[in-house]
Amino acid sequence: MINKLARRIQELEAPIVVGLDPMLSYVPEHIIKVAYKNKGENLEGASEAIWLYNKGIIDAIYDLVPAVKPQVAMYEQFGIEGMKAYVKTLDYAKKRGLIVIGDVKRGDIGSTSTAYATGHLGKVAIGGKEFRGFDEDFITVNPYLGSDGILPFIDVCKQENKGLFILVKTSNPSSGEFQDRLIDGRPLYELVGEKVAEWGELLMGSEYSYIGAVVGATYPEMGKELRKLMPKTFILVPGYGAQGGKAEDLKHYFNNDGLGAIVNSSRGIIAAYKLARYDSYGETAYADASRQAVLDMKEDLKIAWLKR
Amino acid sequence: MINKLARRIQELEAPIVVGLDPMLSYVPEHIIKVAYKNKGENLEGASEAIWLYNKGIIDAIYDLVPAVKPQVAMYEQFGIEGMKAYVKTLDYAKKRGLIVIGDVKRGDIGSTSTAYATGHLGKVAIGGKEFRGFDEDFITVNPYLGSDGILPFIDVCKQENKGLFILVKTSNPSSGEFQDRLIDGRPLYELVGEKVAEWGELLMGSEYSYIGAVVGATYPEMGKELRKLMPKTFILVPGYGAQGGKAEDLKHYFNNDGLGAIVNSSRGIIAAYKLARYDSYGETAYADASRQAVLDMKEDLKIAWLKR
Repeated sequence: MINKLARRIQELEAPIVVGLDPMLSYVPEHIIKVAYKNKGENLEGASEAIWLYNKGIIDAIYDLVPAVKPQVAMYEQFGIEGMKAYVKTLDYAKKRGLIVIGDVKRGDIGSTSTAYATGHLGKVAIGGKEFRGFDEDFITVNPYLGSDGILPFIDVCKQENKGLFILVKTSNPSSGEFQDRLIDGRPLYELVGEKVAEWGELLMGSEYSYIGAVVGATYPEMGKELRKLMPKTFILVPGYGAQGGKAEDLKHYFNNDGLGAIVNSSRGIIAAYKLARYDSYGETAYADASRQAVLDMKEDLKIAWLKR
Repeated sequence: MINKLARRIQELEAPIVVGLDPMLSYVPEHIIKVAYKNKGENLEGASEAIWLYNKGIIDAIYDLVPAVKPQVAMYEQFGIEGMKAYVKTLDYAKKRGLIVIGDVKRGDIGSTSTAYATGHLGKVAIGGKEFRGFDEDFITVNPYLGSDGILPFIDVCKQENKGLFILVKTSNPSSGEFQDRLIDGRPLYELVGEKVAEWGELLMGSEYSYIGAVVGATYPEMGKELRKLMPKTFILVPGYGAQGGKAEDLKHYFNNDGLGAIVNSSRGIIAAYKLARYDSYGETAYADASRQAVLDMKEDLKIAWLKR
């Protein structure tokens, strides 16, 4: 799957993942109306609304980007009905040829990590048969519990040719509270980064490992160091756009092959129609605004990955 | 909710939480048969089996312990159907008067943390009304992302009088890889513990904060230090029993009031019938074996919380 991701990035010239993190407040009125009319003004109706909204965006961008990254929290907030919308979104995105990165940030130990890995990446055995729960291509994972938490995920990735993105340095302002603290003179995120590179050797693709890292766009100097520490690690980069990360800052996240990083944008694409820049599209053409926002992001990012 | 937890521990003389972490291999044959017959040998049937299994255990132990802690990964591995079994388990346990700690180990930033908090502890607004997604009383949370990840959860806890248990020092062998690393001469888990105490001041109950900590039974010396660092913090203690933690080791996790800690046991209770000690119960009386295992654990723990 990491080989497919690299190949698709090259084919499309787009190291871009679209974050499908719908808030109900993003969903245009005409979709809300249909969803509430058909399913009720309740958890089911709200989940239907975000699913229809996602479907419109996927239809508008599937030929431009290699991957989408649904943030499961945005679905989980609507309970079971929301999780159904999450599954519909995963399945539809895959049907449209997109690679799906489930932003689930799970993490536990031993048999519990195995259960998460099974549910999201693998197959669960029931009687004589095997079944899939959520079935993403990649998921994000939290490293705080150490190797016991990560290795069970890697075992399932090996069986399935799927991958992980492990949190190393997150994009938020307070990420430094623990991640930047110095241990023998080096920040914790570097130690985690080294561990990710080590874990990554357990499951290599052609050029890059199936085990990637999350490094925020908002800390470019740290990204530069981490790129060197983890040369074979694909970096998933949140924090571009709405959170303040700029294309210029991202050039060190890429390797000389133009690969090694994939930049996420969520709000800036899925709710583009709410931005002054795309105001002319209006609510009904929200998906066209998203398409244009992807094209603009692609252009913007060239600074980063062409001019290394 | 933290006041209720403390009161129920005192009333029942049982600082015990039963971990509802069902594996399909734990479920007795007679339950499997009924579930597969009614729902099919598939994700729905497997989820029905773990729900029926849980129900039997809840019925057998609800009057002995204050709380249960379902581990969501064990449900999530069965996809949507598993999540329905998770909700049924939560709802039934609450109906039986139990406090429910959702072991979800979620953690993200900003609006994403808010979405998790909303889905698991709060209410989501849809149109003019509010709805609940999963509705646990407490959930476990991962601190790696810092305050940005925690404060949105605390905001929802304030509105709902609910609480958190934040991972500080986990019970697994490799927990030291990052958690034990020294920062200015002190291990990371102490810094996290201090932060938990600080966050805890934002939402105090009568004696203890609504914001608790997770500290494994397998590291008693560290537990002793953390108890001192976080005097008003309730500690959720995994790792007793199956993972090797002994009652004698736990005495420093409690305060002089006999409170301040609640000890989890999962396999040792829910799959007690598989242990040599409870062999005489047999599969069909698995829930009676679980009840006896709780009574035995209660007796065993007296060493820890009576003789401080």
